[in-house]
Amino acid sequence: MDIQPETLAASVRKAQRSFGSSRGEQRSAVLLRLATILVDREASLLQANRRDLEAADESGLTGTLLKRLALTPEKLATLREGVLQLAAQEDPLGRALRRTELDDGLLLTQVASPLGVLLIIFESRPDAVIQIGSLALRTGNGVILKGGSEALHSNRALVDCLRQALEEEGQPADAVVGIEGRQAVAELLALDHHIDLVIPRGSGKLVRSIQSSTRIPVLGHAEGICHLYLDASADPAMAARLAVDGKCSYPSACNATETLLVHHAFLPHLAKIGEALATEGVKIQADDRSHPHIAGAQLAHESAWTTEWGDLTLGVRVVDSLEEAIDHIHRYGSAHTDAIVTEDDLAAERFLQEVDSASVFANASTRFADGFRYGLGAEVGIATGRIHARGPVGVDGLLTTRWLLRGEGQTTGDYGPGKRAFTHRQLAV
Amino acid sequence: MDIQPETLAASVRKAQRSFGSSRGEQRSAVLLRLATILVDREASLLQANRRDLEAADESGLTGTLLKRLALTPEKLATLREGVLQLAAQEDPLGRALRRTELDDGLLLTQVASPLGVLLIIFESRPDAVIQIGSLALRTGNGVILKGGSEALHSNRALVDCLRQALEEEGQPADAVVGIEGRQAVAELLALDHHIDLVIPRGSGKLVRSIQSSTRIPVLGHAEGICHLYLDASADPAMAARLAVDGKCSYPSACNATETLLVHHAFLPHLAKIGEALATEGVKIQADDRSHPHIAGAQLAHESAWTTEWGDLTLGVRVVDSLEEAIDHIHRYGSAHTDAIVTEDDLAAERFLQEVDSASVFANASTRFADGFRYGLGAEVGIATGRIHARGPVGVDGLLTTRWLLRGEGQTTGDYGPGKRAFTHRQLAV
Repeated sequence: MDIQPETLAASVRKAQRSFGSSRGEQRSAVLLRLATILVDREASLLQANRRDLEAADESGLTGTLLKRLALTPEKLATLREGVLQLAAQEDPLGRALRRTELDDGLLLTQVASPLGVLLIIFESRPDAVIQIGSLALRTGNGVILKGGSEALHSNRALVDCLRQALEEEGQPADAVVGIEGRQAVAELLALDHHIDLVIPRGSGKLVRSIQSSTRIPVLGHAEGICHLYLDASADPAMAARLAVDGKCSYPSACNATETLLVHHAFLPHLAKIGEALATEGVKIQADDRSHPHIAGAQLAHESAWTTEWGDLTLGVRVVDSLEEAIDHIHRYGSAHTDAIVTEDDLAAERFLQEVDSASVFANASTRFADGFRYGLGAEVGIATGRIHARGPVGVDGLLTTRWLLRGEGQTTGDYGPGKRAFTHRQLAV
Repeated sequence: MDIQPETLAASVRKAQRSFGSSRGEQRSAVLLRLATILVDREASLLQANRRDLEAADESGLTGTLLKRLALTPEKLATLREGVLQLAAQEDPLGRALRRTELDDGLLLTQVASPLGVLLIIFESRPDAVIQIGSLALRTGNGVILKGGSEALHSNRALVDCLRQALEEEGQPADAVVGIEGRQAVAELLALDHHIDLVIPRGSGKLVRSIQSSTRIPVLGHAEGICHLYLDASADPAMAARLAVDGKCSYPSACNATETLLVHHAFLPHLAKIGEALATEGVKIQADDRSHPHIAGAQLAHESAWTTEWGDLTLGVRVVDSLEEAIDHIHRYGSAHTDAIVTEDDLAAERFLQEVDSASVFANASTRFADGFRYGLGAEVGIATGRIHARGPVGVDGLLTTRWLLRGEGQTTGDYGPGKRAFTHRQLAV
């Protein structure tokens, strides 16, 4: 990179300030323009992607990774569809969240505002440039995009589409910039006065390494150790279905089930659950109490409860009560997503009430924890932190608020004992 | 402290998990009990406070600091009043923020939940123990309170009231603990797995030192460099009133006006503004263009624009346009509170739209930026960060959310092309 990271971040901040106070229809126009550009440039985008694919091929990349890297006319059409949906969406900015009359002629409004400058770090999938970039355009944020080196040419070409869309609509192109190289990222992570939020999309290792190397807030999750608890009264057929879906439908997903907790009264049904899982190729790591009930299970070590397997391995542990299940979840879990299977409504409600995780389910697969399934529209990511945004994060996670006060010259000295009193009347929003 | 900070923080976490899932009426009962205890123990609270006052007297503490340290029957009555108000308030927990039907028999609810464990660090005023402690009780949070050594005995006695109220209502007393000594704070600031939010209440120096020594999110503000911009069309009488109120009504407050920006077309009126300020004892640091217009002004150095005076000093600078005023605010300000004085509605709206600060005012004093004045009830503090909570923060800043999903055994494999489709019906909350 020729330009210094500090200079670059400052220019994104400056562009964002101007772009962030544009009108909703101006930002919609940029998105519509982007959709057009994606059509116009299809051939050159595919060509840039071919260069990355050839290099990947030479370096021996195969299977899923290669598939993720590939852009196709179908993928581009899907991306364009998403951009058009965002363009048609109601503007998220300027929305009043709270309106309070403090006094006659003194009106307070809390409004949704752009968060500021985002640093997005992602791996392999070049689609992310358009997905995240268009979300940033919709919400008036500035964004610095750092993709993986394996998608270098694709990322450059896609970032260029975003910048052209801004420019052609009279907005500052620097609201979106791409960067390359690890050194640049390291330097950007130190610029907490220029960058407001870091969103790493990728492996737990990537997220942890970023979390431990910056003072800027990080939105994301390093681990997803999700539990499925089979209560004493669980329906065995439902338990088997939810265990199989939770573990097998996408084993490397963060919302996949990693540990099955089993109430001792459910033990007579465990063999069947084990069979259903074995049919799908699941390998069981069982504690000493569940081990005799599961054909082919290995004995688990203590470390099993803190392992995100990421494959078709599943830990199984017996507990004596709902409380013990909840304690296990709080002790070993990552507060991502935890579910109970039970026919007992009181047990379900206690679990929902007491489990302190971002997503807590009764009689549903842990894999439902997802922005699309939650109906949030575009998903920014899943956050396991407790402040700002928690669980699957949609557009709201890219917004902050400002308090606007419109007066007629009032001073605080006008109010107080023996003087004027605030009315504090909540108005409709 | 006898107990290790790590052990202590773990026991607060444990207590909070239990207390945080208590019912709203149980937490109200604890608050009512606390109000009673504050009456019953009045004599011993005043006695504990006398010990602090005597020690402060010996160490030469005087004036405002001594006044802040003193507990009186009136102050205790006010605190009790606040506690009773919180007890009567609608429960902030469990409130549904969003309800979505994902499908028949698959209902998603986003609910308000306790943030977790708070570490509150405050100076001199022992009232803060009850103010913050009762907020934590209302919101089901655990809280570790660290007051100043000058209020040692008062703080201990007040923390004891909170713990007794919890205990007598069958809740875990360890949801509230007091700690003493800087070493303990330093160790707690390292425990980001046990503590979810740090709230420092005190000087900018205290806040900065905490921000730079922890990975735990910090809610607060280090500086409050607030601007009042007198536009070309500002009403001179209103401008004088707002400048005097902004600077003089409480010069050490974070929302006090520190810099007056003046449109060059307003210069003919500046002498009168200078006189009004001089009458109140304000010393002006003026740039070279405003200097000739203000009797008795000193010439300002560049550093004036980044100084939070905290006393009756005020910087004054001339700008040639609204844009230049906004640029100055973005460059030198702390994004706390900034105001415009203008008779031009378009200028007012542009200022409100474009100034990227937590609070932005038109024709009102910067000193309105305050939780009580905003009608938020109890104020946790004022935040200048952009994530989680911004500006004056009420009870909402002590809450997070959880996503609860109630199903009937659905798996994610049931949904997709050619299978079931999500309904994503938004329901009333």
